[in-house]
Amino acid sequence: MQQKSNVTRRRFMGGLATALGVASLNPFELAAQRGQRGAGGAAGAQAPRMPATLAEQIARYDASAKLANNENPYGPSEVVLKAMNDVWKYSNRYGYPDPGIRQAIAESVGVKPENVLIAAGSGEILKVVDATYLPEHKYFVGPDPTYDSMYRYVTETKGMALRIPLRKDYGTDIDGMIRATKLHARDVGLVYLCNPNNPTGNIVPKQDVKRLLDSIPEEIPVFIDEAYHHFVDNPNYEPSIKYVLEGRRVIVARTFSKIAALAGMRLGYAIATPDILNEMNQQMIGSISSLVKYGGVASLKDTVTEQKNKTVNKQLRERTVTELHAHGYETIPSDANFFMVNMKTDIAPLGPKFAEKGVLVGRKFPPMDNWMRVSVGTDEEMKKFVSVFKELMPAGKSTSAAAGA
Amino acid sequence: MQQKSNVTRRRFMGGLATALGVASLNPFELAAQRGQRGAGGAAGAQAPRMPATLAEQIARYDASAKLANNENPYGPSEVVLKAMNDVWKYSNRYGYPDPGIRQAIAESVGVKPENVLIAAGSGEILKVVDATYLPEHKYFVGPDPTYDSMYRYVTETKGMALRIPLRKDYGTDIDGMIRATKLHARDVGLVYLCNPNNPTGNIVPKQDVKRLLDSIPEEIPVFIDEAYHHFVDNPNYEPSIKYVLEGRRVIVARTFSKIAALAGMRLGYAIATPDILNEMNQQMIGSISSLVKYGGVASLKDTVTEQKNKTVNKQLRERTVTELHAHGYETIPSDANFFMVNMKTDIAPLGPKFAEKGVLVGRKFPPMDNWMRVSVGTDEEMKKFVSVFKELMPAGKSTSAAAGA
Repeated sequence: MQQKSNVTRRRFMGGLATALGVASLNPFELAAQRGQRGAGGAAGAQAPRMPATLAEQIARYDASAKLANNENPYGPSEVVLKAMNDVWKYSNRYGYPDPGIRQAIAESVGVKPENVLIAAGSGEILKVVDATYLPEHKYFVGPDPTYDSMYRYVTETKGMALRIPLRKDYGTDIDGMIRATKLHARDVGLVYLCNPNNPTGNIVPKQDVKRLLDSIPEEIPVFIDEAYHHFVDNPNYEPSIKYVLEGRRVIVARTFSKIAALAGMRLGYAIATPDILNEMNQQMIGSISSLVKYGGVASLKDTVTEQKNKTVNKQLRERTVTELHAHGYETIPSDANFFMVNMKTDIAPLGPKFAEKGVLVGRKFPPMDNWMRVSVGTDEEMKKFVSVFKELMPAGKSTSAAAGA
Repeated sequence: MQQKSNVTRRRFMGGLATALGVASLNPFELAAQRGQRGAGGAAGAQAPRMPATLAEQIARYDASAKLANNENPYGPSEVVLKAMNDVWKYSNRYGYPDPGIRQAIAESVGVKPENVLIAAGSGEILKVVDATYLPEHKYFVGPDPTYDSMYRYVTETKGMALRIPLRKDYGTDIDGMIRATKLHARDVGLVYLCNPNNPTGNIVPKQDVKRLLDSIPEEIPVFIDEAYHHFVDNPNYEPSIKYVLEGRRVIVARTFSKIAALAGMRLGYAIATPDILNEMNQQMIGSISSLVKYGGVASLKDTVTEQKNKTVNKQLRERTVTELHAHGYETIPSDANFFMVNMKTDIAPLGPKFAEKGVLVGRKFPPMDNWMRVSVGTDEEMKKFVSVFKELMPAGKSTSAAAGA
């Protein structure tokens, strides 16, 4: 069930060029965006085309339905924007006053401030967890596929990735992860869960999380990435912060990029015991914008917008997948702000075709080569997506969600 | 001349609490700000006082003359602010279009885009250079004191710091650095210069930079931190990018934090050969705000503001040090947006006294325990500083710049 791999870093392409389906001209620009959760990448070969001017590229991007990067399509709420706009006077300051972001986070999730470590996006948390717990040659146990920045960091620091394939129903194979961890217990530096999982969008049920934690040696840190936590509406789901409060070696990552729509502003955090956070703290850059801490505090208070984002996301996701089912395409049941649809063919050539028609969709996530990840955009964007989908994809026998997932 | 040290990381305190001279209540808040260039730190013990409420702390900070962190007191120019305000629509995006920041930087410094690596502030460049070239037990050669984030990173990654004390005239001891590097050539992973040096503000003359590069083995990377480059007006200074163009293993760091007043927005870059940038690239997080790349492009075009900032900085610095000399205190000749003044007594108790009177000054930089680092603020701030200085410090015999520096 498990595959050892320490392959050369998969060539990762992010940002505008890929989103538009054009070959990148500039590997460094892209590299600089790598840490960004959900940035698109090109796993398959794409036909080169005439490069557009920068202004043309930007205009095309602005006009497109942006369903590639699991972003919040509505942007920060008015109160959050106001909070950031009010502190431009600190844009030239390192020593700007902190509006109490750690306390605000701690209160919002029911822990103490010393359980909170803030970072420039949860991407920094992932990198720091890797740097802290995966010295060279240590083993990393994670589902495959999952959020692939984690595998990239592991590979770059010469860790050994034990990729545990998803089950046939696309769920995270907790039993496989337990077996691998126990088998290599002496060498395992870190176990990783993404809940809900990216790119599949499905949750890891609460009993599975508990079984994993109860089954492996307690000294092995378990990193649980809850970037999409706020969108979940599922009785089988449970956030893992309670395990931190039990004193376990569990690190939970959260972000302001998704529900709070601050992806471009870079703010995320880890919840863990002070011991663990002290270990991680050595590796932090903490290069956090003077504006976003204010935006973060405001967004934590703005629970009305949070609830609205969650509700609308679910409605649009359900409406869209129902339309895809009717058109003959199956999806994986999702609790996130994205979902996967089985295109019944390798999706590599499809991205550029959707992009040409003004819809930016997710890249390929090997080994799920036939599955396309689609972010939930606005009402208008989802209508455009379904319309382009029906234009490009032949109708099939009416179907439903993938069985058992 | 050289001192080996691999000491426990100096307890570093940054941010508001320290700036205000109050003991910090919250080590993590501070830790998260560590990567920020010039953030204040408490090297000496400070008297605990009653903690102010957050609102009171912010009000006191806003009302203070902010001369502690080498920030640009004027903030970003109107065109830069407009460029950032125009792209709030990307604040929720990872995949936002890049406005061509690498190309703009490359043009502005006369290199190719493949010689440019952008980062979330030059702090990320420092950390990545350390991670790339200083694996455990490798030697780092640098002046002492210099920008101490570099020593902190070295210590955290278990590098061995060879701290070469400044000369008696407070200049960087290039001959000492050459000797140390040659003596330990097999073990040296990185040589570091800060030009102008922080905290002293003086330059490393161009002949000294050249002699260093010509004297040590060419395979040893030399990292030259030019954060304060744009303020220099000195015929003995020369930027080091020309050595990159010669193909040497030289990495130059620059930042938008100082002359462009974007410290709070986090944007910096490295200039080096593509080979070196490829090596560094593996370690980047690149968690860069969607707004600041637009601000960066605009600021590179706004050369009028750049020149004005440089001119006014020099005028105010010269006026202020002349007043200090007349009051009997010597300074180190500076080409930066800060300078050091000899307080003739340990400065640890002085920071809080200045803060009480509404002037935030630099922390202690051991071993220069009697020297206070003062950033150049606005006209009004510098008047306030001189006034408070005369109130707190007894007049002495009229003096001048420290001899020979």
